[in-house]
Amino acid sequence: MPLGPLGGAVLAVDIGGTKMASAVVDGAGEVVAYDRVATPDDPDAEVLWRALDGLLGKVVADAGAPALIGVGVGCGGPMTWPAAEVSPLNIHAWRGFPLRERLRERHPGLPVRVHNDAVCVAVGEHWRGAGRGYDNVLGMVVSTGVGGGLVLNGRLIDGASGNAGHVGHVIVEPDGPPCGCGGRGCLEAIARGPGLVAWAQGEGWRPGEAVTGVELAEDARAGDAVAAAAMRRAGRALGLAIASATHLCDLDVVAIGGGLSQTGPLLFDPLEKELRAHARMDFSRDVKVVPTSLGQTSGLVGAAALILAADRYWHAD
Amino acid sequence: MPLGPLGGAVLAVDIGGTKMASAVVDGAGEVVAYDRVATPDDPDAEVLWRALDGLLGKVVADAGAPALIGVGVGCGGPMTWPAAEVSPLNIHAWRGFPLRERLRERHPGLPVRVHNDAVCVAVGEHWRGAGRGYDNVLGMVVSTGVGGGLVLNGRLIDGASGNAGHVGHVIVEPDGPPCGCGGRGCLEAIARGPGLVAWAQGEGWRPGEAVTGVELAEDARAGDAVAAAAMRRAGRALGLAIASATHLCDLDVVAIGGGLSQTGPLLFDPLEKELRAHARMDFSRDVKVVPTSLGQTSGLVGAAALILAADRYWHAD
Repeated sequence: MPLGPLGGAVLAVDIGGTKMASAVVDGAGEVVAYDRVATPDDPDAEVLWRALDGLLGKVVADAGAPALIGVGVGCGGPMTWPAAEVSPLNIHAWRGFPLRERLRERHPGLPVRVHNDAVCVAVGEHWRGAGRGYDNVLGMVVSTGVGGGLVLNGRLIDGASGNAGHVGHVIVEPDGPPCGCGGRGCLEAIARGPGLVAWAQGEGWRPGEAVTGVELAEDARAGDAVAAAAMRRAGRALGLAIASATHLCDLDVVAIGGGLSQTGPLLFDPLEKELRAHARMDFSRDVKVVPTSLGQTSGLVGAAALILAADRYWHAD
Repeated sequence: MPLGPLGGAVLAVDIGGTKMASAVVDGAGEVVAYDRVATPDDPDAEVLWRALDGLLGKVVADAGAPALIGVGVGCGGPMTWPAAEVSPLNIHAWRGFPLRERLRERHPGLPVRVHNDAVCVAVGEHWRGAGRGYDNVLGMVVSTGVGGGLVLNGRLIDGASGNAGHVGHVIVEPDGPPCGCGGRGCLEAIARGPGLVAWAQGEGWRPGEAVTGVELAEDARAGDAVAAAAMRRAGRALGLAIASATHLCDLDVVAIGGGLSQTGPLLFDPLEKELRAHARMDFSRDVKVVPTSLGQTSGLVGAAALILAADRYWHAD
């Protein structure tokens, strides 16, 4: 079992509405075994739990059943924190599901640490990805929603209730469209995939098979004017929110992941243009905006870091 | 010389465009001597330095010439940090003035620590004022400009270049008025005293003797409709920026100081209304917005904390 030079294997978990993924991560942050399953579309909380437990057992076996030193988990929010009774927006079967407690029962004696899935992406990118070597990093996930996590002064910021990093609810259009959060004009209301799709359809975009942000991005790349305008709209909103965030937090790097972040200049060009128009002070001009670099494993590597680099990323309990 | 139970006297300094203030602060954060002078309106950097040095000498003498353990300073920005070559916007005689170095020469062997003046207000309010007992506090100063400082996870956030806390440049009106920073629609462009005055004059407000935000606030209190509308405009902008800030940072408390913060419900009512309309998630609903509680000494107490509580407030050198 080739564990990294630092020793200590961690079971990492990433739970979303579409899929549940798991990995064994070694002390150096390398993924040594990985698998995933579709999140069961079932109203029974225990059906999901058994699917998760089966996945975790398989991944540990695939890794050669190493001695584990802990379990790190990223899960869709909201949740109580750090107790991690989770109620993920896109997993209706889990409402107040005691995820941390259940994992503790299943892995007695091991520390179990759960954080928001987008927070884990930010941690993974800070620890081993696009934000490595910087002390002030905002990690973002632009997908069905817009999530994030914040590392400042070299440490993960939890905030009053573990909810720091909700960059999707920075307001970019005060009288803009209603947001799922109950507010209005949040970044997420504009830049989330379904929001972009709805806007584009209102402007006359006729999607093909899949009515998703990724399809919209593909149409934009293929030259569809309305789809391209939708990407500009998302890019501008992201640029505004990042300008506000870097003025408040004096960031080194913003790392953007999620489906829409893969669309390249269609998203990043308008983002940069808007950001640079607003971030004009010496310090804020320096912020770099880059795609995440760990791909699908960002969140798993970040979840592992809750155990492996707890001095920087875990301040609870 | 009645120094506090924790021992250790600090020379605290607060340098602004209008006045320079200084205090000797004991180990418990109590001000044991205080004085101030008008900032000389003189183009010679050394004239300012001599005025400052004279003030400091007087305050130390007034305190009974205690043994000092350090010098903490809040100064208007911008500055290089932590080297503190300062170029305060409102002190034209100092451009790249080596404030830290000069104070070190004058107080050999003592640590000298300089931070932005609004950051020191935030630190003071967190250490001994309205944010005491909370781990996540945004301190703001609403005056000629709009400044701030950020304490998260119980520690002062410096950011990449010591500039974290610039809440005045959170964007609240993307296509709004130009801001002194070179951007547009920043909170400061709308809510700073002179911005409010200019807006009110454009709407027909006829000021009396002093054309200032404080006069405007007094007229609003006296029933002037345009002046009241200007205060609502500022309050709404503050509410929006605070909503964005608490979504990003999951704050416990926002403490607002500076001249305009003394206007009570005229400012705080529209602020609360806008904030609560936008901050609708469970975690963001809980944020409290209060006036600062240390009055004129917030910044001095915060400057002292750079020495006296360095584990939380000083991460440089």
